[in-house]
Amino acid sequence: MKLTLVKVGGAIVENADSLHLLLDKFARIDGYKVLVHGGGRSATRIAEQLGLPQQMIAGRRVTDAETLRVVTMVYAGLVNKDIVAELQARDINALGLTGADMNVIQSHRRAPKNVRMADGSMQLVDYGFVGDIDRVNADLLADLIAKGVVPVVCPIGHDAKGSLLNTNADTIAAEVAKALAAVFDVTLVFCFEKRGVLRDADDDNSVISTITQAEFPALVEQGIVSGGMLPKLENAFDAIRAGVHEVIITRADAIDESDAGTRLC
Amino acid sequence: MKLTLVKVGGAIVENADSLHLLLDKFARIDGYKVLVHGGGRSATRIAEQLGLPQQMIAGRRVTDAETLRVVTMVYAGLVNKDIVAELQARDINALGLTGADMNVIQSHRRAPKNVRMADGSMQLVDYGFVGDIDRVNADLLADLIAKGVVPVVCPIGHDAKGSLLNTNADTIAAEVAKALAAVFDVTLVFCFEKRGVLRDADDDNSVISTITQAEFPALVEQGIVSGGMLPKLENAFDAIRAGVHEVIITRADAIDESDAGTRLC
Repeated sequence: MKLTLVKVGGAIVENADSLHLLLDKFARIDGYKVLVHGGGRSATRIAEQLGLPQQMIAGRRVTDAETLRVVTMVYAGLVNKDIVAELQARDINALGLTGADMNVIQSHRRAPKNVRMADGSMQLVDYGFVGDIDRVNADLLADLIAKGVVPVVCPIGHDAKGSLLNTNADTIAAEVAKALAAVFDVTLVFCFEKRGVLRDADDDNSVISTITQAEFPALVEQGIVSGGMLPKLENAFDAIRAGVHEVIITRADAIDESDAGTRLC
Repeated sequence: MKLTLVKVGGAIVENADSLHLLLDKFARIDGYKVLVHGGGRSATRIAEQLGLPQQMIAGRRVTDAETLRVVTMVYAGLVNKDIVAELQARDINALGLTGADMNVIQSHRRAPKNVRMADGSMQLVDYGFVGDIDRVNADLLADLIAKGVVPVVCPIGHDAKGSLLNTNADTIAAEVAKALAAVFDVTLVFCFEKRGVLRDADDDNSVISTITQAEFPALVEQGIVSGGMLPKLENAFDAIRAGVHEVIITRADAIDESDAGTRLC
């Protein structure tokens, strides 16, 4: 049974036009499906409106108690429920979830860790209420999916001790995909700004159609895969080794095209 | 199969101490259960922090598009997910829901209607994105409950055309209770500030232990049930006529006591 799990970032879902286009295309994907979304820009905007300046370190949000309240409101409320209502209007029986709901994503709070700063120095950073995932409990989720429900997951986990935890959406997508791979034939789709992994960063038409695990090290050596793309592809291949059938890296407006983007397998 | 559906208002769930006490007691209720909650005070506070003054007419919130965004953030995000995480910490497998999730509560936007103002005059009021319930789809919900999931429902419905709709929490509780009565033996518990329906409004110890449908008209004639209590009891007896086994009116700190409050049957 084929299942497509699409992960889409905040830039797409926080703009009404690009969100509607995404959901139209998501609705056209055949078979079982799951959507994992971000929402960071809205969280930053609303936090600032509420007088809470946001601090990002090495691209990650420092999440104090008040900021956790804001990301919970924005991810689990504003962004998630808007997507759910819009999918229901497209006859998709969506169910919005945090990781606390049905204990789907059990996590622990990240201990302070050494992080490399922009100037190259190392600094011990306490990211606050940020989660690292221990376990995805996918049994009830898989039952619901088999009954036609489409889970819409926002990037919040919980520690089973009463705290919600702000969690990286890419990681949630990969961990949920791995857990569902026990039941379904899972394709994990990461929406990027580019049309896929490019052989030449300056040429949008140089999309590499397929990268196998065997081919990957050579692409890294040649410098074709580097920077922020490197950990993303490493995570993708981790997911494949953990049972995910394939990972597609594509643009949000091409998620319903079976031959678009870069296929990792 | 006995199911207890507890409806609790915003005053209880928006204060950490009273919320924790409520959830401790809710966790102790035997059998299947559902929680329906409000959150109006937080919504008003956050709306005002965001520079959106709130307008209440005859006790109901006028919900323009921006206010709908705020109530969605607060009810479905902040309040709902805090309750879900706290219940998970108490080994209750909670699932937070709006009416859009799994299409549980399908509604339509309320047409402008004539409302009696405080000064006795009538005025045509458009409450904006406020919902009246058409249908509760309880099949998937009943399946999940039978598997040990405890739904936590916030007062938001949807119109199946992409709009969420702000909806009265008492009405949601009654309609969900009626729909679940097809499968379960439902006790509907409304948490009040008083210990129950009082024979003497000035005497907190004058709780009437039971009111039957046959006894109700006489209590209205005698003026013992009047004011805001009257429509609440009328709705309760409606629910009983629609198949709900009994309705209990009690204080939030007594929901786990089987002989507390007033029992309507």
